[in-house]
Amino acid sequence: MPRLKLTVAYDGTVFAGWQSQVHRNTVQDKLERAFNEICGAHVRVHGAGRTDAGVHALAQCAHVDLPIRRLSAGNWTTALNATLPPTLRVLRCRFVSPQFHARFSATGKTYRYRIWSAPILPPLELHRVWHIPQPIDVELLIAAGRMFVGKHNFAAYAANRGKKEENTVRTISLLKVRWRRSDVAIEISGDGFLYKMVRLMVGAMIRVSLGKMRLEEIESGLRTGRPNGSRNVAPSYGLYLVKVWY
Amino acid sequence: MPRLKLTVAYDGTVFAGWQSQVHRNTVQDKLERAFNEICGAHVRVHGAGRTDAGVHALAQCAHVDLPIRRLSAGNWTTALNATLPPTLRVLRCRFVSPQFHARFSATGKTYRYRIWSAPILPPLELHRVWHIPQPIDVELLIAAGRMFVGKHNFAAYAANRGKKEENTVRTISLLKVRWRRSDVAIEISGDGFLYKMVRLMVGAMIRVSLGKMRLEEIESGLRTGRPNGSRNVAPSYGLYLVKVWY
Repeated sequence: MPRLKLTVAYDGTVFAGWQSQVHRNTVQDKLERAFNEICGAHVRVHGAGRTDAGVHALAQCAHVDLPIRRLSAGNWTTALNATLPPTLRVLRCRFVSPQFHARFSATGKTYRYRIWSAPILPPLELHRVWHIPQPIDVELLIAAGRMFVGKHNFAAYAANRGKKEENTVRTISLLKVRWRRSDVAIEISGDGFLYKMVRLMVGAMIRVSLGKMRLEEIESGLRTGRPNGSRNVAPSYGLYLVKVWY
Repeated sequence: MPRLKLTVAYDGTVFAGWQSQVHRNTVQDKLERAFNEICGAHVRVHGAGRTDAGVHALAQCAHVDLPIRRLSAGNWTTALNATLPPTLRVLRCRFVSPQFHARFSATGKTYRYRIWSAPILPPLELHRVWHIPQPIDVELLIAAGRMFVGKHNFAAYAANRGKKEENTVRTISLLKVRWRRSDVAIEISGDGFLYKMVRLMVGAMIRVSLGKMRLEEIESGLRTGRPNGSRNVAPSYGLYLVKVWY
């Protein structure tokens, strides 16, 4: 069976996340139904990772094993897009070796988190940014972000810390804050991310930048693996999966 | 009665245009209902101009005569936004002299028209750009745009040419094409715009850039006031009202 790698983009607002669910409008379900329609057989879509409801993707990756051989990679892009809604697009398809696996072959990911820092949120930014009406201290935001860079135990920045056996050590290779007036973007690259890790990191960074948390609390969370006090999960709709690295 | 000037922004996708209509979700109706709720009396909102369904506004202007005096301009912004949906925001309010009129005092307007020039439209650009899958010649687009700059009879670029008595002479002071890969923006400033004028201008520019129309046809349309052959109205959802000049 030929293996096809897909790069897809979607507007997170209209989907109930990536992962297949009964009677829910998920990205995986939409893709599997499109393959089903074209192939006349069930095809399982393996994603590089799940994204929660509301999270956008500029370039999510997946792979499938095709039951038919008659289409070129370019034709797969066209055929899938003709079947899919415009809120979900296949950007490109490529045939890959059977050793390639969308999830296990990935060497890293890049996420972007967008914040709108102003009293009034422009209507066209709705569902695309986290609106923070209070003034934030960008210097503190940058300083907070810097603490995450490197190899750390991110147990304090994972939502499902119940699974004790899981390895919670991850390496953040890059964390960059860019801003232009009210428009703030945090770009984070790493070798892997725990469940809700980016949103918990951004939640802590914002708490620091609002003066509600001290920088040392981030440091101790990374050292001990336990959060100090309450945690703040940044909302899903500000998060964008930018790239999966292989 | 104190006169208040409003600057408002809206996502054109969710409204049936600016102008009040029976049983329709229009921007003017939403604003009048918000004033009604706050004042307990009907207040007429006078816009700087109408925008069609789908057209976005980054800074539309309007004025109202207030039946009550108890709120400051800043409080009006807050009170209106508390009542309005997040797809429509009041950016600022300012008390103005009774001589100020949102429509008649305006000295010009700036519009932006956005085009996405690539085979695949990214989902987050849906309803925000005109998607042109075929390659466009940007040099021709710029050359076509240049022809509109200056004082011309724009009768060939107006949708309602039935009204013969109307003065169709307008001055375009600036037309600038900016692009970054697939993302093309045309910014147009002028002393006034006829009905659907920007969308007819952009429609002609795109026809030229696709090689479907000659530059000379734009020139003759401006000279004679009559379009040569069929006209192309660019879709409403690519259009943004950027600024009203006073």
